[in-house]
Amino acid sequence: MKNVLVTGFEPFGGETTNPSQEIARQLNGRVIGGRRVIGRILPCVFGAAIEELEGYLVEFSPELIIGVGQAGGRAEITPERIAINVDDARIADNAGLQPIDRAIVKRGPAAYWSTLPVKAIAAALRAKEIPAAVSQTAGTFVCNHAFYGLMHALRKKPRIRGGFIHVPFSPAQAKKGQPSLPLETMVEAIATAVAVSLRTRRDLRVGEGQVS
Amino acid sequence: MKNVLVTGFEPFGGETTNPSQEIARQLNGRVIGGRRVIGRILPCVFGAAIEELEGYLVEFSPELIIGVGQAGGRAEITPERIAINVDDARIADNAGLQPIDRAIVKRGPAAYWSTLPVKAIAAALRAKEIPAAVSQTAGTFVCNHAFYGLMHALRKKPRIRGGFIHVPFSPAQAKKGQPSLPLETMVEAIATAVAVSLRTRRDLRVGEGQVS
Amino acid sequence: MKNVLVTGFEPFGGETTNPSQEIARQLNGRVIGGRRVIGRILPCVFGAAIEELEGYLVEFSPELIIGVGQAGGRAEITPERIAINVDDARIADNAGLQPIDRAIVKRGPAAYWSTLPVKAIAAALRAKEIPAAVSQTAGTFVCNHAFYGLMHALRKKPRIRGGFIHVPFSPAQAKKGQPSLPLETMVEAIATAVAVSLRTRRDLRVGEGQVS
Amino acid sequence: MKNVLVTGFEPFGGETTNPSQEIARQLNGRVIGGRRVIGRILPCVFGAAIEELEGYLVEFSPELIIGVGQAGGRAEITPERIAINVDDARIADNAGLQPIDRAIVKRGPAAYWSTLPVKAIAAALRAKEIPAAVSQTAGTFVCNHAFYGLMHALRKKPRIRGGFIHVPFSPAQAKKGQPSLPLETMVEAIATAVAVSLRTRRDLRVGEGQVS
Repeated sequence: MKNVLVTGFEPFGGETTNPSQEIARQLNGRVIGGRRVIGRILPCVFGAAIEELEGYLVEFSPELIIGVGQAGGRAEITPERIAINVDDARIADNAGLQPIDRAIVKRGPAAYWSTLPVKAIAAALRAKEIPAAVSQTAGTFVCNHAFYGLMHALRKKPRIRGGFIHVPFSPAQAKKGQPSLPLETMVEAIATAVAVSLRTRRDLRVGEGQVS
Repeated sequence: MKNVLVTGFEPFGGETTNPSQEIARQLNGRVIGGRRVIGRILPCVFGAAIEELEGYLVEFSPELIIGVGQAGGRAEITPERIAINVDDARIADNAGLQPIDRAIVKRGPAAYWSTLPVKAIAAALRAKEIPAAVSQTAGTFVCNHAFYGLMHALRKKPRIRGGFIHVPFSPAQAKKGQPSLPLETMVEAIATAVAVSLRTRRDLRVGEGQVS
Repeated sequence: MKNVLVTGFEPFGGETTNPSQEIARQLNGRVIGGRRVIGRILPCVFGAAIEELEGYLVEFSPELIIGVGQAGGRAEITPERIAINVDDARIADNAGLQPIDRAIVKRGPAAYWSTLPVKAIAAALRAKEIPAAVSQTAGTFVCNHAFYGLMHALRKKPRIRGGFIHVPFSPAQAKKGQPSLPLETMVEAIATAVAVSLRTRRDLRVGEGQVS
Repeated sequence: MKNVLVTGFEPFGGETTNPSQEIARQLNGRVIGGRRVIGRILPCVFGAAIEELEGYLVEFSPELIIGVGQAGGRAEITPERIAINVDDARIADNAGLQPIDRAIVKRGPAAYWSTLPVKAIAAALRAKEIPAAVSQTAGTFVCNHAFYGLMHALRKKPRIRGGFIHVPFSPAQAKKGQPSLPLETMVEAIATAVAVSLRTRRDLRVGEGQVS
């Protein structure tokens, strides 16, 4: 059986949990669309996150890779459209690193596009009553870092598709007034994203951009 | 079997759906805590909403009444703490009425407190991973209007408890970036609120206020 | 010359500044509409805030009192419509007090209305390009506490008008993405509120409510 | 005297004003840092916006170009870090065009970095009590389109610097609860951005990224 890799991140920024970690754990071993999901947790550390991810690419030869990360404050499940070649850390990572305006890959392109069908994923989630929208920025912290590193690793392997999806806080993390989603809703969302990605060759042509 | 009344509202403000309407419909007939839930839809019309509600109080003699309404833009299920004695409509209601600074009950008190265990409800929802928080304002439109009218009707009936809970948009209603929750999560939330209200005599003493 | 009292609050909640404190300081001694502004700083402490405020009412016999407080996260200058009779502290005040669901005035009414022309103030601010809107809740912390205490003190003195206005963070306080306003804009806003209150006997009849 | 070009946009999306248009008008003819500011208004039309902009580059040979656009809902003045090579229109532009996932420049790079000192600009604004933060996405509508077109035009002219800054709604545009800033604050902000860009060769090395 072929493999799909779903990565989450360990908690960071003073949080004790990270919904992306729980998602990767819960999906690990599940079979979706005839593939086995390998769920793994990446360290929230610049450099190390990419190294571990590259190790899993070698170990499991996945045909599809979906990185998942926590975007506290967002209201929706957000497939990311683009990864940009910069680390600019507003807070320290879990190893105390805080790079400022550093290229992730020296002389790498300014950005890589996701090769996931981000619009089909968003549409499929909304059809299941799960809040979803395409995002135009994965930030400049370890999530974007791993996402860029992934797309750089895949740049010459067009048949292996990959990308990144941000998820909101879980309810226990949200402060009063902040959006959040039940964890089980988020697990279902990422399982759906895997299924949609496996069966969708051409993304939908519908507006999912934003004015600003 | 004793009755519990759960009211929702018809769509308003240009929307074609209203999650509170769906919640009332789906809970209608369900048995919770040994009581039968009567689910009814109120018109989003000043005056008429209270008149219909009062009719249901007579018809069903419920021992517990939970009004439910849509609070587009909120991120959480929000049991309301207080109803205030003013109609101040930013938009027209479904009959075209748009009262400005009009008392709901002439010479009525400035405000009535909910008699639901609002903090126990919020805590029970969060324990189920459902975003929830106590709200300090139900607005000044038809939701607050019906809530005030309900508490006025119950003011001399301390054994009948009542209150109001606002729910977020459903995903189909939310604009990009706006919070929403799956409808089934919201139905479960209100069912939980009914159960908690029935079994809770004294509310929790935990901070659920807000700084501003 | 008659007096107008404008109160601000000392910093709280871990902040080192409070725009309301700066506003009261900067307006202290200014003459607006033929009255002298007395600017004073209240402690962010339940009980003590009302006691100090009552002392100023005796000392200065103001004909108009505007309490000002910080509402971190709000985007607008918000004249408050109503004060409610409850302390429910999500965080400790500056004396370590954290009351839960305690009446501010035992057997006091559930709420008092502001006697400021809140809509005329909001309209005048917007005419000056200053973001403004009427608010339906002053929260349940020390701001609402002082506001309720003020209106309770004025309840039998209809010729003395009073109320409360919340202001956003100043830019130095706001986290990335949070709204804020330049301090000078906020000082101008409160000066304008004083002037409008002095010259306005009947508030505007325009919709300033909210749906929820 | 050398020239600086500041562009704004005409109103779009049903608005009757656009603060960026007013900013360009008010700065037109002003002298900042020994340069004359040329303020021009671009059409909010895909294609035509870049064509007009390129015409101004030829006509005025500016050494610095700052595009300005309206980002309704944002709370801060936001210098943009990066332009991406895609048009994905959620709404129609002013000519009725609504491209979906179309490259702005065929075979152009996925993204261009701003060559403005975006962090020095944000820091200078905050020092003036003006809300400001670096943004990681200019969206996928006409603002990003013009920004990408500008950086493409400048790609082989390293001595001419350019970039884009989004500004919030003006107060008259904002709905209740939405952030906005007084127009004069925004005019001062862009004038400051021009001055800072002219005198800053190396941007500050401070964290201005975002986690997500």
